[in-house]
Amino acid sequence: MLNVPLREPRTAEQHRPAYRRQSSHERRQRTINSFRSSDSIHKLKEQNGTLAAPIESLYAGLSAVQKDDGALQYAVALHDGTYGIRCETKALNDQAGSSDASSETASGSSTPRSFQDTSDALATEIVGYLRKYRKDHMSKPMGAALTAQLASLSPHLAVRLWTELDIVPFVLSADSDAKREQASLSVDEEAEYMARKTVKQYNVKGELPITFGHHHYVNVDDGGRVHIADIESYHGSRGTVRDTTWQATLHFADSLKKNKTKVAFFNSTPQGGGVALMRHALIRLLRLIGVDCTWYVPYGRTEIFRITKDNHNILQGVATKGERLTTQNVADLDNWVMEEARKCHWLEFGGPLASREKGGADVIIVDDPQMPSLVSLAKERDPNRPVIFRSHIQVRGDLADQEDTATAEVWRWIWNHVKNCDVFVSHPVRAFVPKNVTPEKVGYLPATTDWKDGLNKEMSDWDQQYYMHEFKVQCFKANMRRLAFPDRQYIVQIARFDPAKGIPDLLASYAKLRNDYMKDTPFALIPQLVIAGHGAVDDPDATIIFDETEKALNTTYAHLKDDVIVMRIGPSDQVLNALMSCAYVALQLSTREGFEVKVSEALHKGIPIIATRAGGIPLQVQHGKSGYLVQPGDHDAVASHLYDLFTDTELRATMAEFAENNVSDEVSTVGNALAWLYLADTLARGEEVKPQERWINDLARDKAGVPYLEDEVRLERNVELMLAH
Amino acid sequence: MLNVPLREPRTAEQHRPAYRRQSSHERRQRTINSFRSSDSIHKLKEQNGTLAAPIESLYAGLSAVQKDDGALQYAVALHDGTYGIRCETKALNDQAGSSDASSETASGSSTPRSFQDTSDALATEIVGYLRKYRKDHMSKPMGAALTAQLASLSPHLAVRLWTELDIVPFVLSADSDAKREQASLSVDEEAEYMARKTVKQYNVKGELPITFGHHHYVNVDDGGRVHIADIESYHGSRGTVRDTTWQATLHFADSLKKNKTKVAFFNSTPQGGGVALMRHALIRLLRLIGVDCTWYVPYGRTEIFRITKDNHNILQGVATKGERLTTQNVADLDNWVMEEARKCHWLEFGGPLASREKGGADVIIVDDPQMPSLVSLAKERDPNRPVIFRSHIQVRGDLADQEDTATAEVWRWIWNHVKNCDVFVSHPVRAFVPKNVTPEKVGYLPATTDWKDGLNKEMSDWDQQYYMHEFKVQCFKANMRRLAFPDRQYIVQIARFDPAKGIPDLLASYAKLRNDYMKDTPFALIPQLVIAGHGAVDDPDATIIFDETEKALNTTYAHLKDDVIVMRIGPSDQVLNALMSCAYVALQLSTREGFEVKVSEALHKGIPIIATRAGGIPLQVQHGKSGYLVQPGDHDAVASHLYDLFTDTELRATMAEFAENNVSDEVSTVGNALAWLYLADTLARGEEVKPQERWINDLARDKAGVPYLEDEVRLERNVELMLAH
Repeated sequence: MLNVPLREPRTAEQHRPAYRRQSSHERRQRTINSFRSSDSIHKLKEQNGTLAAPIESLYAGLSAVQKDDGALQYAVALHDGTYGIRCETKALNDQAGSSDASSETASGSSTPRSFQDTSDALATEIVGYLRKYRKDHMSKPMGAALTAQLASLSPHLAVRLWTELDIVPFVLSADSDAKREQASLSVDEEAEYMARKTVKQYNVKGELPITFGHHHYVNVDDGGRVHIADIESYHGSRGTVRDTTWQATLHFADSLKKNKTKVAFFNSTPQGGGVALMRHALIRLLRLIGVDCTWYVPYGRTEIFRITKDNHNILQGVATKGERLTTQNVADLDNWVMEEARKCHWLEFGGPLASREKGGADVIIVDDPQMPSLVSLAKERDPNRPVIFRSHIQVRGDLADQEDTATAEVWRWIWNHVKNCDVFVSHPVRAFVPKNVTPEKVGYLPATTDWKDGLNKEMSDWDQQYYMHEFKVQCFKANMRRLAFPDRQYIVQIARFDPAKGIPDLLASYAKLRNDYMKDTPFALIPQLVIAGHGAVDDPDATIIFDETEKALNTTYAHLKDDVIVMRIGPSDQVLNALMSCAYVALQLSTREGFEVKVSEALHKGIPIIATRAGGIPLQVQHGKSGYLVQPGDHDAVASHLYDLFTDTELRATMAEFAENNVSDEVSTVGNALAWLYLADTLARGEEVKPQERWINDLARDKAGVPYLEDEVRLERNVELMLAH
Repeated sequence: MLNVPLREPRTAEQHRPAYRRQSSHERRQRTINSFRSSDSIHKLKEQNGTLAAPIESLYAGLSAVQKDDGALQYAVALHDGTYGIRCETKALNDQAGSSDASSETASGSSTPRSFQDTSDALATEIVGYLRKYRKDHMSKPMGAALTAQLASLSPHLAVRLWTELDIVPFVLSADSDAKREQASLSVDEEAEYMARKTVKQYNVKGELPITFGHHHYVNVDDGGRVHIADIESYHGSRGTVRDTTWQATLHFADSLKKNKTKVAFFNSTPQGGGVALMRHALIRLLRLIGVDCTWYVPYGRTEIFRITKDNHNILQGVATKGERLTTQNVADLDNWVMEEARKCHWLEFGGPLASREKGGADVIIVDDPQMPSLVSLAKERDPNRPVIFRSHIQVRGDLADQEDTATAEVWRWIWNHVKNCDVFVSHPVRAFVPKNVTPEKVGYLPATTDWKDGLNKEMSDWDQQYYMHEFKVQCFKANMRRLAFPDRQYIVQIARFDPAKGIPDLLASYAKLRNDYMKDTPFALIPQLVIAGHGAVDDPDATIIFDETEKALNTTYAHLKDDVIVMRIGPSDQVLNALMSCAYVALQLSTREGFEVKVSEALHKGIPIIATRAGGIPLQVQHGKSGYLVQPGDHDAVASHLYDLFTDTELRATMAEFAENNVSDEVSTVGNALAWLYLADTLARGEEVKPQERWINDLARDKAGVPYLEDEVRLERNVELMLAH
C-alpha cells in the first residue's frame, strides 16, 4: 500500500479515490440499510442486553515494546474518564505476512517479516481490537494516546485510528512525569498512563482546547501530537488531489524549504470560523511537507469584537442600526492591534513582524479585515518584505465605492492600512473588490475545505449511526421536533442562522414541494427538512431568525411544522458530517454569499445540491449535472428540482456520481496550499507578482510548469457570467 | 439570620428545618405545577425564542474589591467551556439595610452598613444576577470560582450558590499563575481568570476529579476549596440536626481539639460507594469544626479488586461459582496491602500508621474488609494505639459460623487480622456478626447520608426541571422508554442492578397493581414505574439482571412495558435527587439488605416508602406512619399499599408529613460524626470502650451527658424483633 509512487502518472478518469470503491449513491444506500440491520447500534444494544445507558465515551492508551528477539508486545488500556476500566497486553500474532492478501510480499512463511508487514499487522490488530471492543461493549473510543515507540513501530496506526474508527490519535512521548513516578514502566503501565493522558486532553465540553506557543502562535494539532493525517492522506492511494495539483504544490514547497523561507499568517481568531478551519488544515499539511509556516493570533478582547462585528456588517451592507466607524473606534482598533503586538512580542527581536535582519518572517500574510494595521506595521519595519492581504468577506464593492457611505468609511480605514501590500487576495467575485484597490494587485482565491477532517472525512456506518443518534439526542434535549430518518428521507441546509442564508426561502420552497408536488405522496415517502448550523445562543441575529422561523412554522406552515427540524448544534464536526452524508439532497438558498464552501462539501460527498446564484456559489455547481442553480427567491424552481430528485432515483444517482467526481482540487487544502506557497515563494525570491485579477491557482500552475489537463476539473472562472445566467 | 445562637434550645417539635416552610406534600405539588407553568424551562424556551439548543452549561468567575471609601465593586464573568462569553462589573447597590426586611437591623438609612448587611447584600446581588441570567439565557451555571477576597467579603455566598442555585462554589486565591501573567488584575480580569479556573476544575465527563495529598490522603472537597457547607448547614436556621445531637458531637470535638488528637480513616476506594459518600461528608464536617481527621486510600489495582469482589460475594453468601479464598489469594491480598503501605509511605516516619512517637495518628479506623491487615500492621507498630475496625457488609454470620464454608474461610482471614482491634463496629443487625467476634467489642452503627450534598439537598423548581429533563435525555440517549411525568405520576426504586434488590418483585408488584387494582383506572391516573441506579456497564451481575428484566417486560409483562423505565444513570447525584423528589412513592423491595440508607433518604424528602423487612431497612420505617414494611416477595401487600397511596391523597400527604419529620439524626452526617468522635476521643484518652453489642450513638450520648429527649426520633433498636414481625 505504501509503495505507490508519489508521482505515479494518473489520468483524470482515475481521480475517484481508491478507497471509494462504491459510488456515493451505493454507499449511502448501504449506510441507510445499516441503520436497520441486525448489526445496527440499536439492534446490538438489544441483543447484547447491555444495561440501558447511553453509548459510553472511552479514552484509550496504546503502547508497544519490541523484545530483543524481535517479538512484539502491545497493550491497550481503556479509561472511562473517571476510572481505568481495562488493560490488556498481547503478543502480536506471529503469522508471517500481513493480513492484506493483495500485498506484494509473496515471501514464504519462514522468512522474517519486513518492517512494513509488522507495522501493518500491529496497526491492524490494534484497530481490530478497538473496533470489536466498541461493538461488544457499546462504547465509543473518542481518543487514543500512542507512545512514541508505538508510533515509530507502526507509523500508520495513528491515521488509521482517525480514518477507520474516528478516534483522535495523540502521539505522546512517555514524558518526564511518568519517568519521575516510576523508573521504568512496563508496557501495560505505559498504556494505562497513556489512557489517563488521553482523558486530560479534553475539556469539560469534550473538546480539545487549542494550545498556543511563543509569540502566541496557534499550536495546530497540539504541535503535531494530534496525528490525523500523513502525506498519503493528500496524495497517493488514500489521497484527495490529482497529481497535477500535488506536483505543482511540491514545486514551490521544495523551493521554500531550500531557501529556508519563513512564512507567517495572521488573523484574529484561532477557531470558530472559515478562516480558522482552513488555516488549521493548511498548517497540518505544511508541517508534513516541511515548509516553515507559522500562524499567529492575538489574545483577543471582547469589547473590540463588538466593533469588528459592526465593521463586518457595514462592509457587507447589512448593518441595521446605522452603525458608523467613529474616530474613537478607529483609535481603539489600531491601539488594540498595537497592544496585541506588544503582548505577543511580534515586533521585537525574533518576533515574526520584526525585520528580516532581526529574525522576522520572510513573508507576511494578513488574512483578516479586523487587523489591517498589521500590514502597515509590517511594511514600516521592513519595507521590502512581501506582505499579502486577504479580504475574505463579501465586501459590497458598490457601497465602498460611494463616497460617504458607512461602507466607504470602513473601507477607507482598511485600504489606508493595506494599500502597500504586495498582493491583494479576494474571493473570486469581482463585485467584492472596491474600485480603489489597485487592479494589478488583485488575485482571486476561493475558500477551501479539508477532505480528511471531521467535517468531511468518510465515516464508517457505525460512526454515522452514532452521530445521527447524537443529533437526535441534541434535538430531544432542545425540545426540538424529531428526525424520522432512516424511516423517511430528509433535505438539509447546513448554515449559520444568518439573515442572508435564505431560511424563509427554505420554508417557502419546502411548502411548495409539499403543497404543489407531494399532495398525494404517501407519508413515508415525504422527506423532512433539516436546517442546522453552529451558532452562538447569544447571537442576537441568530435568535431573531430562529424566532421568525418558529413563528412561520406556527402560522403559515403549521401543517408542516412536525417535519421541519431547526437546530443549532454543538461543536462536533462529525455530527454535521453525518447530517450531510445521510441527506438525500442539500440546499443552499443564500440571498447573499461569499463563497460558501459547504456547497462543495455536499458535492464531494455525492449529495446533489440545489443552490442560489449568489456570491461564489455558482462557481462550484455544474447546473443540471452536479446539482441545480436557481435565482434567490425562486421557490418553484427549488420545489420542482426537489420533486425531480425525489421521484427519479436514477437522476439522483447520476447526479451524485457526477458531483463527487467533479470537485476541483482548488477547494481543498492542497489547492489552497498551492496558491499560498506560490505567492510566498515567488515574492520571497524577490520576483514581482501582479495577478491582474487572475486566479492565483492559474498563476501558480503556469509558474510551476504544470499545465491543466484537458479534462481537469476547475471551478468556473467567470462568476459574473454565472450570476447573470 | 446569622445570629441564631448555636445552642439555642429547641424542642423536638421544632425540628422541621426553618427553610421548609411548606410541607413536603405541598412542596411537591408546587414543583409539579412548576413543570407546567408559564415559568417552566420548556415554556420559557418557547417564549424567549431562544435558538433551539440544549440548556447550555456555564462556568462562572466571581470577584469583588472594596475601595478605600468602603464602596464595593463586584464582577461576574461567564464562560461556556470554550470561550469567555461575558463579563460584567457592577457597584454594589448602595441602599442601606439588606433586602431581607425581617432583618434585625432597624438602623436608619444614613447609618453605615454593618459588615453583615454588606456581606448579605453582596451575596444576594450575585445570586440574583446568576438566577436571572440562567432564566433569561436558558443556561445552567455549573460551578463558580470566587476569589479569596470575595469569599472574605461575603462568607455565605459560596454556600448560597450551592443551596439556592445548585452551583458548585470554589474558593480560590488569585494564585501565582495569574500574578506572573499580569502584575495586578482588575476586578473584571480577576473574574475572567476565575471563570477559566472554574472550567479547568471539571474533567471531560463534567465531574470534579478527586485529588489526593501526601500519603495518598483523600483531599476532600479539593482541600476545602469546594465550599458547599458551613456550620449553619448542620445546625442553626438552615441546619439538619437536633440540638442534642449537635451538643453531644461538639462535646467530643472539643476534647479531641484540646488534646490535638489525630484520627486516620482507611478504606479502599475514594468514590463510588456508600463508605466513600459517608466519608466525604464526615471529613467536610470535621474540617469545619476543626477536628484533625484524615482519610487515606490506596492507589488500587484492578487484579486485586477481582479477588476482593469475590470475597465480598462469599461473605454475603451470594458467590455463584463456588469461589474460594485460596492461599495464593491471601498472599496476594496481604502483599498488596504491604505494597500500598510502602507506596503511600504509611508506615514510615510521619506516616499515619507509624507509631505515635514517630508521628503516626492517635486513632486508626479501618473501614474495609478488603484491607483487614491494616489492623494488624497498625497494632504491630504501636500495640497500645486504639484501632477500630468497621465491618460494613451484611456478612452471613450463620455461614461464617459453619466450619468449612467459603464464608468461614474468608471470615477467618479477616478475623485473624482484625481480632486485636479495640472496637468492632457493625451495621445494627446481630445476624451480620459472626460468633467468633468478641461480643464486648461489638458496637452498632448505621450507615448514614448527608442532607446537604447533591443526592439529598432540596433543590429549586428550576433545578428539578433541569435534572428531570436530564434524566429524560439520558433515557432517550439509551433508547429507553419515555417517562411521562409530570403528565403522569411514577413509582421509583433507586438501587444498583444487583440480584438482592428485588427487581423481579418490583415488576410482579407493579403488575399486580395494574392488573388487580387499576384495571379500570383512567390512563392518566396510572403511574409509571422507574427502576434506576448507578452501576458499571461492565458489571456482569448488572447486565444479567437488566437482561432478565427486559425479557420479563417483553413476555410476561409485555402489556406494561411502555410504562416501566429501567435505567442505569450517569454520575450526577442531582439527577437521582430529582428523580426521588418528584416520585409519588418509593419502593425498596430488597430480598437481602445491609442497611440501605436510600430508605431514609426517601423519608427525609417526604416520599412515603414501601420496603421489605430485610437487613437494616425495618429500623428506618415506621410501618403505617412513614411508609409500609412488607415481607420480601409479598407482591399483593405492595400492590395494595400502592393502591391506597394513589387513591387516598390525604393518606399520602399525612404519611409524607410524618416521614420527613421523623428521620433520626442517627442516619445523617452529624449522627455519624458523633459516633466516631466519641470512639476516637474516649479511646485516645486511654479509656476502654466495651460496647457489648450496644449502639455507639447510645454510648456517645451517655458519655456526653446529653440524654435523649422524650420524643426524640431514634432508629428502632431491635432489628431482630422488626424482622420477625
